[in-house]
Amino acid sequence: MDFVLHTYWRSSAAWRVRTALALKGLAWESAPHNLRTNEQTAPGYLACNPQGLVPALEVDGAVLTQSLAIIAYLDERFPEPPLLPDDPLERARVRAFALAVACDIHPVQNLKVLRMLRARGLDQAAVDGWAREVIEGGLAACARLIEDRTGPYCFGAAVTLADIVLVPQMANARRFGARTDWPRLEAIEAAALAHPAFALSRPEAQPDADPA
Amino acid sequence: MDFVLHTYWRSSAAWRVRTALALKGLAWESAPHNLRTNEQTAPGYLACNPQGLVPALEVDGAVLTQSLAIIAYLDERFPEPPLLPDDPLERARVRAFALAVACDIHPVQNLKVLRMLRARGLDQAAVDGWAREVIEGGLAACARLIEDRTGPYCFGAAVTLADIVLVPQMANARRFGARTDWPRLEAIEAAALAHPAFALSRPEAQPDADPA
Repeated sequence: MDFVLHTYWRSSAAWRVRTALALKGLAWESAPHNLRTNEQTAPGYLACNPQGLVPALEVDGAVLTQSLAIIAYLDERFPEPPLLPDDPLERARVRAFALAVACDIHPVQNLKVLRMLRARGLDQAAVDGWAREVIEGGLAACARLIEDRTGPYCFGAAVTLADIVLVPQMANARRFGARTDWPRLEAIEAAALAHPAFALSRPEAQPDADPA
Repeated sequence: MDFVLHTYWRSSAAWRVRTALALKGLAWESAPHNLRTNEQTAPGYLACNPQGLVPALEVDGAVLTQSLAIIAYLDERFPEPPLLPDDPLERARVRAFALAVACDIHPVQNLKVLRMLRARGLDQAAVDGWAREVIEGGLAACARLIEDRTGPYCFGAAVTLADIVLVPQMANARRFGARTDWPRLEAIEAAALAHPAFALSRPEAQPDADPA
């Protein structure tokens, strides 16, 4: 199968998909879109993804959108290694952790929302404060969701969807100067970043990276 | 199995789970929490759901959170009727539609975010305008995601997760006076509300409803 990933080096959601592809050992071609210059809203890309968001994954020409839907597809088509536990209650808990980040943190502090805040007259300090409030409240809840679990990863010895989603959110927290000092979350992040799939998928390792 | 649903009549996310339970023919006991008076942040409830959000579903005493994770659990444990198609690409598209609402519309216009905006000095008209902008942009993208599909539901003849998530979002749009006049979306909403599972699950049909 041929995979083309519409991506942006700094996008948390694209990072999630890059990690899943790496975990599954799947090679992909990169189609980068610079979110800073709004390339994702160009008509050609909107024809591919009407939401004007990255990531999108082309699978033999068919376009899939939404990082968690793409990852679920990859996990169904390429079951090894599994990204969810076998037990139904445990699967629900891993998914809930991932959704606690993907619904309740990331979309409320992403570039689109921060631009909307600036358009309402908030200055940069107020906008950054908004991002920190959302991230810190969200990460505090995430830490509690796994407080009775042991590591090295969110839900034990195996990487799951929860780790795939947490690691980019921790990086986002650092960008905004938000608290990250929940010991379990920082230990999970360190363990994950030592894993080759996460290391390969890091923003700084992408061909379109532009840290300047 | 015993199900206790922590709910609020007007919560879109709780409505999703109520619909899934009804579609699966599962009976449940209601544990309502009034979001207007912040009952969901009481210590007793936070011990149950550290995110302080509804819904949460107790399954024989085990607590599950996040509406889409709960629905995925119900669909795995009670496969009939299925809430996702069989084909992997189609499953991914239904999930992507649901996530386009559940990640990119609802969390950016929910009560928590609107309260944060008011705390930043936006007046009620500006806050309502924010909600409308988020909802209208999101629904426009949703309409395009299914523009090549036929009804009566989002993805054809069978109710899927996409319908479960769309219907409460359409109701939210009406509350804020946002546009809803995408003909396909309105036709899907009408078809769904004529289905007994959606009718049973409507906010106005809940014991804790307080439309005053």
